[in-house]
Amino acid sequence: MSEIRSQDIEIRTSGNARSAVKRVAIVEAATTLFLRDGYLATSMDEIAGLAVVSKQTVYSQFGDKENLFRDVVTAVVDEAATPVFAEVSILPDGGNLESDLRDLASRLLARVIQPRLLQLRRLVISEAGRFPELGRLFYERGPGRTIGALADAFERLAASGVLRIDDPQLAAEHFNWLVMSIPINRVMLCGEDALPRGADLNRYAQAGVGAFLAAYASR
Amino acid sequence: MSEIRSQDIEIRTSGNARSAVKRVAIVEAATTLFLRDGYLATSMDEIAGLAVVSKQTVYSQFGDKENLFRDVVTAVVDEAATPVFAEVSILPDGGNLESDLRDLASRLLARVIQPRLLQLRRLVISEAGRFPELGRLFYERGPGRTIGALADAFERLAASGVLRIDDPQLAAEHFNWLVMSIPINRVMLCGEDALPRGADLNRYAQAGVGAFLAAYASR
Repeated sequence: MSEIRSQDIEIRTSGNARSAVKRVAIVEAATTLFLRDGYLATSMDEIAGLAVVSKQTVYSQFGDKENLFRDVVTAVVDEAATPVFAEVSILPDGGNLESDLRDLASRLLARVIQPRLLQLRRLVISEAGRFPELGRLFYERGPGRTIGALADAFERLAASGVLRIDDPQLAAEHFNWLVMSIPINRVMLCGEDALPRGADLNRYAQAGVGAFLAAYASR
Repeated sequence: MSEIRSQDIEIRTSGNARSAVKRVAIVEAATTLFLRDGYLATSMDEIAGLAVVSKQTVYSQFGDKENLFRDVVTAVVDEAATPVFAEVSILPDGGNLESDLRDLASRLLARVIQPRLLQLRRLVISEAGRFPELGRLFYERGPGRTIGALADAFERLAASGVLRIDDPQLAAEHFNWLVMSIPINRVMLCGEDALPRGADLNRYAQAGVGAFLAAYASR
């Protein structure tokens, strides 16, 4: 009896593992195709083909294309936002605030301007009329989460007297957009070729931190 | 002879006038359909139908759909950006800078969040892979022009000692995005329903001006 049960478990586990591998392959294939061809122009058949699974597997795993889009948004945004969140969370209370914020801004911007994330931002914006809840998902797991972590950090820094802030949430939004608005808006409107590179990109991050500290640092 | 020539002129003039009226009707119809259905999903036939002109007239006036898209971008952006440009240009050198900037920020934001302009921004962003030059057109006639006018104004205000600015272009970008980033990014990602209204919207404009002055006003 116990041997049979253990076999059962093994079969179920390896079934689960195979299923998880397929899920990842499907999300990966859907990401590639959605970002390359757009949401409407991509069929479940093509996704199944690229993931090398049956169309039935795609439907049984995800239900429909919109659900799969939701998983794509979650996967791509989390990949960038989870390390950003971690970096903001460990922003030290003491030390040299200016150099800490300058380092943080460079790292945040470098993560946010990854091509896949920019392409997904473009796709989510273009589909926001049809799928506003996917845009909200992007916002909440991406910029919203970063801004929330920044607000917590700024509240601590205000309590310890190094920043002078009435509304930590608003100050966090200002920090985020002072660092990111110029390059992100340039890319969104003018395409990936318009992304400032290297030193130019970092100049925007540093200028954003400079303006933020001039506005919010205690004197 | 002279009578015939005058008739010729009259016929030509009324031909030009009719042609100009048709052009406006075609651009108006194309704007409605592009913003409602997207660029690819809109046909020249539908545009001709809504404008009540022949398809041949659409082609003879605009050449192709991409050229017509260019005219749509120009018309919609100019409608918002031309008064913005005028308002920034008359920013007084003297007087009460804080209240002038607060008024200006409210007016700029109110113009930029017009539904048609937001929908066009979304459309241009979604088509920037295919038509980056239309995104650049949007940028140059819209935010780029406003930022240029702000940079000129800030340079004057720095020369007269009320602002402390090394790089007027960068300061102008910071002003623009401090005032506009929060609502515009919210709408782009989360859809038109996410647009903050009335007092909430103006709070962002005013907070942006507050941060800008804290960073850039002379002490």
